[in-house]
Amino acid sequence: FQASRAASLLPQLLLRRRPAPAGAFALLARPASSASGGLPPLTTEIHPGIKRGAFSQLTDADLSAFEAIVGGDHVIKDADEVLSYNIDWLRICRGQGQLVLRPKTTEEVSAIVRHCNKRRLAVVPQGGNTGLVGGSVPLFDEIVISTSRMNSLLSIDPVSGVLVAEAGCVLEQLDREAASQGLMMPLDLGAKGSCQIGGNLATNAGGLRLLRYGSLRGTTLGLEAVLPTGQVLDCLTTLRKDNTGYDIKQLLIGSEGTLGIITKAAILCPARPKSVQLAFLGLDSFQAVLDTYRLARRSLGEILSAFEFIDSESMRAVKQNLGLSCPLGEHSFYVLAETSGSNETHDREKLDGFIESVMSMDGCATDGTVAQDAGQFAHLWSLRERIVESLLVDGYEYKYDVSLPLADIYRLVEHMRTRLDGRVIRTAGYGHLGDGNLHLNFTTPKFDAKVLELIEPHVFDWVRDRRGSVSAEHGLGLKKSQYIRHSKADFAVRVMAEVKRLLDPNGIMNPYKVLPDE
Amino acid sequence: FQASRAASLLPQLLLRRRPAPAGAFALLARPASSASGGLPPLTTEIHPGIKRGAFSQLTDADLSAFEAIVGGDHVIKDADEVLSYNIDWLRICRGQGQLVLRPKTTEEVSAIVRHCNKRRLAVVPQGGNTGLVGGSVPLFDEIVISTSRMNSLLSIDPVSGVLVAEAGCVLEQLDREAASQGLMMPLDLGAKGSCQIGGNLATNAGGLRLLRYGSLRGTTLGLEAVLPTGQVLDCLTTLRKDNTGYDIKQLLIGSEGTLGIITKAAILCPARPKSVQLAFLGLDSFQAVLDTYRLARRSLGEILSAFEFIDSESMRAVKQNLGLSCPLGEHSFYVLAETSGSNETHDREKLDGFIESVMSMDGCATDGTVAQDAGQFAHLWSLRERIVESLLVDGYEYKYDVSLPLADIYRLVEHMRTRLDGRVIRTAGYGHLGDGNLHLNFTTPKFDAKVLELIEPHVFDWVRDRRGSVSAEHGLGLKKSQYIRHSKADFAVRVMAEVKRLLDPNGIMNPYKVLPDE
Repeated sequence: FQASRAASLLPQLLLRRRPAPAGAFALLARPASSASGGLPPLTTEIHPGIKRGAFSQLTDADLSAFEAIVGGDHVIKDADEVLSYNIDWLRICRGQGQLVLRPKTTEEVSAIVRHCNKRRLAVVPQGGNTGLVGGSVPLFDEIVISTSRMNSLLSIDPVSGVLVAEAGCVLEQLDREAASQGLMMPLDLGAKGSCQIGGNLATNAGGLRLLRYGSLRGTTLGLEAVLPTGQVLDCLTTLRKDNTGYDIKQLLIGSEGTLGIITKAAILCPARPKSVQLAFLGLDSFQAVLDTYRLARRSLGEILSAFEFIDSESMRAVKQNLGLSCPLGEHSFYVLAETSGSNETHDREKLDGFIESVMSMDGCATDGTVAQDAGQFAHLWSLRERIVESLLVDGYEYKYDVSLPLADIYRLVEHMRTRLDGRVIRTAGYGHLGDGNLHLNFTTPKFDAKVLELIEPHVFDWVRDRRGSVSAEHGLGLKKSQYIRHSKADFAVRVMAEVKRLLDPNGIMNPYKVLPDE
Repeated sequence: FQASRAASLLPQLLLRRRPAPAGAFALLARPASSASGGLPPLTTEIHPGIKRGAFSQLTDADLSAFEAIVGGDHVIKDADEVLSYNIDWLRICRGQGQLVLRPKTTEEVSAIVRHCNKRRLAVVPQGGNTGLVGGSVPLFDEIVISTSRMNSLLSIDPVSGVLVAEAGCVLEQLDREAASQGLMMPLDLGAKGSCQIGGNLATNAGGLRLLRYGSLRGTTLGLEAVLPTGQVLDCLTTLRKDNTGYDIKQLLIGSEGTLGIITKAAILCPARPKSVQLAFLGLDSFQAVLDTYRLARRSLGEILSAFEFIDSESMRAVKQNLGLSCPLGEHSFYVLAETSGSNETHDREKLDGFIESVMSMDGCATDGTVAQDAGQFAHLWSLRERIVESLLVDGYEYKYDVSLPLADIYRLVEHMRTRLDGRVIRTAGYGHLGDGNLHLNFTTPKFDAKVLELIEPHVFDWVRDRRGSVSAEHGLGLKKSQYIRHSKADFAVRVMAEVKRLLDPNGIMNPYKVLPDE
């Protein structure tokens, strides 16, 4: 389904609704084994400098207390069962947790945390465990509090567009519920089949359509959370506007489970578009990608809903490691430009205009196609959404997620490719161009400390020197907490530490994450 | 320029750019006298229960210190000059401040605040002084720190859309600068000719286009602020995504100057629409207003940029008190529906479709018109934007700003109209329907304590009982701080108080505002 250079000849079949995603990511979450085989090394072996905090050890009396709160069936002690909660999705972290608790209600979470705070027992909140920075798994023997059983959709109002859900609801399921009311979730990401809305909020997840629908800081109207003392913070309003006092809930959003456990959320959902279209373009320079982005903003205006780029190395990984086919020939770069709108005819005219401009502009896109049906739509998106999974097949993945000024974005990939030449299987760059967000990845057959030394802190320094962010959307977790000052002023970090001490005086809530050692 | 019932016959002349506003509001800011004449009563007379905090008294040594920091010309002591900084725009508050400081730089603000914190001198940050809840003026002898001289636009990037400005920049001027780069400010409000971006952020201002562009919590990328200890919090990133630690800047947004003084801000500006259209409709029931809103969302989709309603009493005030003319006959309600888009032809087709649906639906709009040129566009908007000013002409204004479920919005106006029958000049309701935000106003020839007793706390109780917000967008300031628990849980208010103590241990920063007495 190659597009001709004459845009007016482009055959188009517009999709009325964004189809269900390929789903492969969901199935692959927590794979039984990776290409490198066996268990990942203990996180404490990779980070020997981190010492266990002065927390208590679990006793039989604690177990009895937890069984009284959540019931024996939801206190998981079996080592095999606990193992999957100790290992992150990327299989780069393995903790030594011995206990998983699976509460059903806010009151149960509150009772658990109250007990842990009194007893100085450290905890780790865990949602879908799809985080990429080691934030959602234990390091030592922290108790995992899983939100998976708190998975009720509480309400959804088609007029106001407000959806209220428990933290453990899976994003994709919420989006399906929203669809039934003519709405959509304002965020979408590759892990949608496994990630939970509570975890999305805790990590301030960005994803594929932030460009259009904005960040969760704007679309989250309310939330409820259990603070580290066990007290319940009820900010669960569904009002679009409410300027009564400080917006305390914003502290929880993006705190990566270090300031409390989000238990419920109220999200403002936009209207589900009546028409969605997807163009896939091949380009031969990064300058052409930037020029195409400027054209897209001008031609597609308010209906542009995603603008993603993929480099040739990322595309090769998807093709070689997952066997996916690319409908275009070899190019240095590929772009996915998606539109979402309320009028099929208007949207098609705008897309035609965009493609015509792109094709007629020298040095811009040289090749392109438009999704003709739901199958092609899903297939084209899978080329982008399954990159992270395809890279894992190489063995070990070194994963970075940075924000940079647009002009610098791909320079970093080229710079690192030269630096690591001959030492890695690949250096792959892709991401959300409209947000200035690059996903930069390196792979080796297995963990290689020398490669890591060549990457860190060099890559973070490079980003800092260009006033970028060392974590655009993944958060700091365990892997990047020591680099927070690369993107935040000293005094700002001190204020964060004071807020942490204020809300979590015993430091039990997801220790060793986000904030650096003092 | 009456519209015929047949939508297809509607003559339309689309505006390429939103024209400059009428500007009358700006000229009328801080009027020399109101219809009731003379000075408003001292705030301490109206609120005799509030006692001065244990702050120091200003000494000559303090004055010398301030002169050394900002220079003698910017230390205002003259009683007549100071008076206008003591009185709020609505003329419902008059403080007893004796000193105004006008720093030019962040460093000067920092030095002033550091001195005040050491000396336990209370301060009030003041921007354009257009706040409506008494938050921006002193109550006792607090020192006013005016941001008016900090009015430089620091940068504006047409590609990323990021504008960086000092706090004292006037919103309308920033919007003009944004326009020169094909961008627009993501907020707009009646006070745009006087209000400053620092004050907009400090109060988390909503305004006319929040419906489309979202809240400042999403569109503010970075800010710099001087905290109550005098330390400078530098969170002035211009990155669209940055998940490195807690989003401390969100505490400053909406803190109404009680947690610090915002000195700089980075705002993400959307593309300026190429086509803007405005429909003005007359309707005979509130149900028709709601039905028209649903139709607008369906027909106008992503180009709907404002949906405002005005009741007949508000319209009468604008006509009688300001002499403005309304192009439609008498109706119970009027609606302004604005579109902003990137394609004039498409937008016009969508608006035609909307008007056709409205006119053909029984019990919906009975009369309507579409702005034909920039003059008509500005005139129609002035009917909405000048209501607040027109009500002041009656004498004394009791002003409320609440969020409610859509079904309850106008019930409150009717309920209060009955309750106050014969005791007020008028009960007027208007506001941002798409945000569930009602502006409810009562007027009397002069302040009447009995009328106030009939309104408060009754109106706040009514809103609380329907789980609304007692302040949708104006904030709590001095006037509503005692009602915070009507919209926020007890424990949430306690956390706010702890955050206040953490950042402002001496309580010098805008005391008596936002948080209730303990």
